[in-house]
Amino acid sequence: MSDNKNTTGFGRRAFLGGSALGTGALLTGMVAPGASAQAQGPAPQVDFPADPRAFGGGGAAAGAVNRTEMDLVDCEVEGDWPADLDGAFYRVGPDPQYPKPPEWVGDIPFDGEGHVSMFRIKDGHVDYRTRYARNQRFKAQREARRSLFGMYRNPPTDDPSVEGLSRGTANTQLFVHHGKLLVYKEDSPPVAMDPLTLETTDDYYTFGGALESETHTAHPKIDPLTGEYIGFGYEATGFLSKDVNVFTADRDGNITWSVTVEAPYAGMMHDFCVTQDYVVLYLTNMAADAETIAANGPHFRYDPELPCYLGVLRRGGDGSDIRWLTGPNLFCTHVMGGWNEGNRIVVDMDGGEGNQFPFFPSKVPFDPQGSIGRIRRYTADLSDGSGTYQAETIFPEITGVLARQDDRYHTLPYRYGFLLATGPNGGWAVIDHETGTSRVLSVPGYSLSEMCFVPRSPDAPEGDGYLIGIGSSMEESERSDLILFDLQSGSNEPRARVRMPFKCVGQVHGFWADASAIEGASQG
Amino acid sequence: MSDNKNTTGFGRRAFLGGSALGTGALLTGMVAPGASAQAQGPAPQVDFPADPRAFGGGGAAAGAVNRTEMDLVDCEVEGDWPADLDGAFYRVGPDPQYPKPPEWVGDIPFDGEGHVSMFRIKDGHVDYRTRYARNQRFKAQREARRSLFGMYRNPPTDDPSVEGLSRGTANTQLFVHHGKLLVYKEDSPPVAMDPLTLETTDDYYTFGGALESETHTAHPKIDPLTGEYIGFGYEATGFLSKDVNVFTADRDGNITWSVTVEAPYAGMMHDFCVTQDYVVLYLTNMAADAETIAANGPHFRYDPELPCYLGVLRRGGDGSDIRWLTGPNLFCTHVMGGWNEGNRIVVDMDGGEGNQFPFFPSKVPFDPQGSIGRIRRYTADLSDGSGTYQAETIFPEITGVLARQDDRYHTLPYRYGFLLATGPNGGWAVIDHETGTSRVLSVPGYSLSEMCFVPRSPDAPEGDGYLIGIGSSMEESERSDLILFDLQSGSNEPRARVRMPFKCVGQVHGFWADASAIEGASQG
Repeated sequence: MSDNKNTTGFGRRAFLGGSALGTGALLTGMVAPGASAQAQGPAPQVDFPADPRAFGGGGAAAGAVNRTEMDLVDCEVEGDWPADLDGAFYRVGPDPQYPKPPEWVGDIPFDGEGHVSMFRIKDGHVDYRTRYARNQRFKAQREARRSLFGMYRNPPTDDPSVEGLSRGTANTQLFVHHGKLLVYKEDSPPVAMDPLTLETTDDYYTFGGALESETHTAHPKIDPLTGEYIGFGYEATGFLSKDVNVFTADRDGNITWSVTVEAPYAGMMHDFCVTQDYVVLYLTNMAADAETIAANGPHFRYDPELPCYLGVLRRGGDGSDIRWLTGPNLFCTHVMGGWNEGNRIVVDMDGGEGNQFPFFPSKVPFDPQGSIGRIRRYTADLSDGSGTYQAETIFPEITGVLARQDDRYHTLPYRYGFLLATGPNGGWAVIDHETGTSRVLSVPGYSLSEMCFVPRSPDAPEGDGYLIGIGSSMEESERSDLILFDLQSGSNEPRARVRMPFKCVGQVHGFWADASAIEGASQG
Repeated sequence: MSDNKNTTGFGRRAFLGGSALGTGALLTGMVAPGASAQAQGPAPQVDFPADPRAFGGGGAAAGAVNRTEMDLVDCEVEGDWPADLDGAFYRVGPDPQYPKPPEWVGDIPFDGEGHVSMFRIKDGHVDYRTRYARNQRFKAQREARRSLFGMYRNPPTDDPSVEGLSRGTANTQLFVHHGKLLVYKEDSPPVAMDPLTLETTDDYYTFGGALESETHTAHPKIDPLTGEYIGFGYEATGFLSKDVNVFTADRDGNITWSVTVEAPYAGMMHDFCVTQDYVVLYLTNMAADAETIAANGPHFRYDPELPCYLGVLRRGGDGSDIRWLTGPNLFCTHVMGGWNEGNRIVVDMDGGEGNQFPFFPSKVPFDPQGSIGRIRRYTADLSDGSGTYQAETIFPEITGVLARQDDRYHTLPYRYGFLLATGPNGGWAVIDHETGTSRVLSVPGYSLSEMCFVPRSPDAPEGDGYLIGIGSSMEESERSDLILFDLQSGSNEPRARVRMPFKCVGQVHGFWADASAIEGASQG
C-alpha cells in the first residue's frame, strides 16, 4: 500500500471526506475535467491506497480485496453433510480488479468488479471455485492492467478508450435459469456464465437480442407455478431515463412479455416483487441525480423530500394500468415475499426509516438510527381508489438486512422468511408468519453473510430444508466456513460446515441451484 | 477436523507416538496387513485429523494444508520493483491432497502431493498462479476422491487399485530446462509442466524414453559453460537397489551420457555436486531399510553406525572409475557449490553432525543439537590414494539449511553462497568466500522460506542481483509477502514486495527462470 506516491500532483487526501465510511463519508472525486489520463503510459504499479475509506483501501491485507480465482476440489468438511444434498451454492460480490487512479479513489465499494464463487455440493463432498465475471469492463482492464472506468455509474468519468463498452460489473446477485448462470448489475444486462465451469459465455446477455431494456435488475424472480423468469430494468431506455422495462421469459429464456412504463422520477429500484397477477416495483428516494453526476459523484443522491412509490402493474398487460402508489416514506431495499388476493397486494421488504447507504451523497446528514432495517409489510388495495399503500413494521424484535424466503413461494402467500439479523443478537433470523414467532441462528465467534434457503428436496414442504451461507471466524483472521443449518433439526447448532483455508471472497448475495438446474447445462 | 469419527475400529491415536513432530515422533502406521481397504465404498468425508503430528494434521485452519489452485493477476506490489526484471519465480512443496486413511495417518510430511506456485514478474507487474502437478498419483486420487497411496516410499502400503502407477509426488524442487518446467520427487521421474500455464504436459517424463533410471534427483544441475543438464537417480534399477544412474542431457533434452554405478548401500542421496570434470555423489546414513518398510514405515532409517560416502566419478566416462570416499560422518543435505582443480575436489554442503529429519525412524534417539546445520566444506585429493575426504565447518557463525548459490557458477570456483539462516539471527544469509564475511538479511516480524538468487541480468557478475523468496507475517496469521532484496543496494531492507491476500502454499524449494527460458516455451 502507498500513501502519497502518485505523481499527478493530486494528493489522495484532497479527495477524501473527513469521516470514516459508515458515518456519512463522501469520498467522491472532485477533479477538474480533463485531469484523467489513466490509459496513457506504462501500466502503473498495482498498489491499493492505505486509506480504508478509499476504493479497495487497505488492499488484500485489510480484507478490502481478494482478486484471486481459486479451485479447491474436495474441501475439508465437518459434521453431518446430508448425503442427498446435490446442487450448488453461488455467491457474488464486488472485488476491485484494479486500484482507481487518484481522481477516482473516492469511488464507492459497489463499483468493484464481480467475483463469483461456487460451492458444488454432492455426496457429502464439496468443491469450491471462484471466477471473475468476464464482462466487457473486466476484459478491457485486464488487457490494460489498470482501472479504466471512473466513478460508480458515471460514464463521463471513464477513460475515453472504453467508450461504447458495457460498464456493468456483474457484482450483485446471480441466478440459474434456462441453463445459464446469469450475473447481475442493475445498470446493465447480465453476464452469462457456465453454471459449473464458471466460464463466461456471454459478456452482455440479452436473451437472444430480445431484451428491450438497456439495464437489468439484480433481483429477477421465478414464478414457481410456471417456471417463468420475470425481470425488469430501470433507466431502461437510456442513462437517467425514467423508463422501466418489465418482462417475462419462459423456461427456455424466450422473452414472452415486455412492456415499458414511466416512473415518477429516475431513482434506485433495487428489487421488486411479483405476485400471481401483478408486478410490484419499488422506487426509493435515492434519486439518480444529474448534479451528482456532473460533480463526478456516484450517480445517486438521497433526497428524503422525494416520495417513495410502489409501482403496480398487471402481469401480461400493456403497462397502461401502471399505478404509482404513495404512503409512508420508508427506505426499503430487498423483498422477502409477497402475493395478491384479488386487488389486495401484500409485499414484505426489509428497510429503514431513512437512507441505508451512507456512501452515497445525501441532501441530509446520514442518520445511523434511521438506517436500521426491519421487516416492513406493505399493503395496498388497488380497488379503494386511494392511490396509496399502507406500511407497518412486523417482527420488530428483529433488525437486519437482506431479506430472503423459500423462493418456491415467491408470488404466493408464504409462511417463512429469513433475514441477516444485525445487532447484538446477530445471525440468520427465521421468521414464521403463521405463528408470529422468530428465532435467530448464530455461530459464536463468527460473523455471518447473507444466507440462502435450500429445500430438503425439490418437493419438500415450505421451509423444510436448510440455511446455507458463509461465516467468518473473528478469532481466525476471518477465515471462512460454509455453514449449514438444518431448520428441522430442533438444534441451534450448525449441522455441517466446510472449513476453508482462507477468508473467502466477499459477497453481496447468494443463490442456491438444485443439481437438476445445472447438470447438463454446463458446456465445460 | 475430526477426532475419532472413523468407523473402521482403528482409533487414530493408536497410531500416534507420544511426542510431537520435531522432537522425534515416529507416527508410522502399525496396522496388521490386510486392514487397508480404502478404495471400497463411497469416498469418505474429507476431514483431516486434529492431531498436528498426523499427516495433514490440523488441516487448513492450522496451515497444514492449502490445496487451492489459484490465479491472481496483477498482485499488489510495493516498493521499487526493478522494471527490467523479467522472469518467473517458481516454488513447490508437499500439500496433502487427501487425508490418509487411519492406518497411514502417521505418514510423514514429505509424502504430500506437489503443489507448484509461480510468480511471473515483468514490467513491475506480478502474476501469481498455482497448480498441483498432475502426476499419476494425483489423478488417481482425484478420480477416487480419497487417498490411495500409503506410507512414504513404501509401495506395499498402497491400495491395490494403484498398482503400476507412479508413486511420485513431484513435491520437492523444480527446474526449467529445454522449455519444460520439470518437477521432481527423488523416487520417480519428473513431471513436466508448461512453464507459464502450469498445465501438466507429461505425468512421467523420461527425456523421450531415454532416461535409464527409474528415479530422478530433485536437484539436477546445469553446467553454465555448456548449458548441459546433469541429473542422477538412486535406487535406479529398482526399489531398494544400490544402483545409481548418472546422466547428461543437452540443451534440447537429449540424453548424451548415461552410466550406472553401484553405491555401498541404498540410502538417501538427496543432492549432488557437478564440477567441470567430476560428478560428486553424497550418500547419507539415512539408509533405505527393508525392516522399516516391512513394518509399514517410511522407507528410511537413520543409522549413525553406517559411514557416509562421497562418490566421485569422471564426467563422460564409463563409471568404472567411481570411488566412494569416506571421512567425517556428517549428515549433509544440500550442496551450496563445488569445483575441481585437477584431481582436487571442493564441495560445500549444509548439514548437521547427525540426523536432520526427526520424523524418520532412527537407531538412536533424535539429537536436536546434532541436527543443527552449518556449512561444511568437503575436500578430497583423488590422487593421494587415501580413499578419504576431509571436512571442515566454515562460517560457523551461521546456522541454517537449504544452501544455494548463484547457479551460473555451479561446477566452477564461486564466491557467494546463500543459506536460510535459522536461530535467533534468522533470515537469508549471504556468505562471501573471498572476504570470509557473512551477513543475514531479515525482515522483522516475518518468517522466511528458502530464497533464490536472481542475476540482475543474464551476464551480470557473480552475485550481482537479488534474493527473492516468501516471507510469512507472524503478526498477520502468516499472510505472505514475496520479498526482493537487492544485494548491491547497501540496504538491509527489502527493495520491493508483493503483498498476498493469504498465506501462500508452503514450499520446500524454489527456482528462478529468466524470461528467455520460458517465453515461447509455453504451449498455453
